[in-house]
Amino acid sequence: MTAPGRFIAFEGGEGAGKSTQARLLAEALRARGLTVIVTREPGGTPGAEAIRTLLLSPPGEAWPPQAEALLFAAARADHVAHLIRPALARGDWVICDRFVDSSRAYQGGAGGLGDDAITALHAFGSKGLRPDRVILLEGDETALADRLATRGQAADAIEGRPVEYHRAVAAAFRALAEADPQGFARIDALGAPEDVHARILAALGDLLP
Amino acid sequence: MTAPGRFIAFEGGEGAGKSTQARLLAEALRARGLTVIVTREPGGTPGAEAIRTLLLSPPGEAWPPQAEALLFAAARADHVAHLIRPALARGDWVICDRFVDSSRAYQGGAGGLGDDAITALHAFGSKGLRPDRVILLEGDETALADRLATRGQAADAIEGRPVEYHRAVAAAFRALAEADPQGFARIDALGAPEDVHARILAALGDLLP
Repeated sequence: MTAPGRFIAFEGGEGAGKSTQARLLAEALRARGLTVIVTREPGGTPGAEAIRTLLLSPPGEAWPPQAEALLFAAARADHVAHLIRPALARGDWVICDRFVDSSRAYQGGAGGLGDDAITALHAFGSKGLRPDRVILLEGDETALADRLATRGQAADAIEGRPVEYHRAVAAAFRALAEADPQGFARIDALGAPEDVHARILAALGDLLP
Repeated sequence: MTAPGRFIAFEGGEGAGKSTQARLLAEALRARGLTVIVTREPGGTPGAEAIRTLLLSPPGEAWPPQAEALLFAAARADHVAHLIRPALARGDWVICDRFVDSSRAYQGGAGGLGDDAITALHAFGSKGLRPDRVILLEGDETALADRLATRGQAADAIEGRPVEYHRAVAAAFRALAEADPQGFARIDALGAPEDVHARILAALGDLLP
């Protein structure tokens, strides 16, 4: 009998280093002999990636906030049904760059739709699947914005929103983590990537085989 | 002060003549001097038409039922916010080929997701907007299937489902109409288009200026 698969989500604002840290964590887990799938949201399956394109480049006017939240929930439902649940059932580890807590922080908190509405969409779409641990990468928002600017990344429909929006997102993430200290590990995202990586491994110590 | 706009939805199974009757009704209303917008679901706005493409030709595996319902609700939210509500606010008439009762009959009833779930998505996405009158085109399902076959129309991801599914859809539409006799006009869809059109005009007599 194989050990159960584990589901780890990386969360945080833009520029926090989620993709880099997801990759470093996957390498460390593979070095321990685990089978690891690294995926991202919105996206991760052909259907969900097509929805991602609609979200980041709306074909018409900007999506109404409710339509945007429904699209995120639809992409997640496809991703969970076709990739995440089958992988966990096989005993694989799944590392996901963003999951439902991004919808809760961005659309529910900063976007004003409220946590109950986003949570209800997730209960309907994905039977409320929760990560075994959420790694919340936190840093001073100005420092993170600088890091993003240095990368020279083109701003998409969500990244391009005003700084107040991104501050509200950070506050919403903090509130989610404070309400569920078992489910979230709050990690200082500033400093060298290998230092941040070491903090993350320490925060997952109880889940590692 | 202008008269309020009216919102008329056409519902029914495939081959019932919804598009033809929507066009005939629009012509009759325009002849009375009304401004009329004819639209359809899923679709009607650039964003919703892009979602329609994803629904009818899934880019990956078939959508899980919950993802499909979320996509329909997202398309409707965009359509309502960007086209239907502004048109009604101007005092235009809006004639829509399918609306939320299609989601209730197909995904809620025949698809087994339940009416409460679909109604909750509509309350969230489109503030529960209801048509002033739903024209439900009904006919013997075998006769309608024959009519569709004669048209030689290529079956999409939903049309191509087995006949039991389409019978369940028809039963679900009937149940919705029986539960709301004020909101629905049940119209015999068989016979010459001009005869069906006359029945529809009669069923809208109380709404016409």
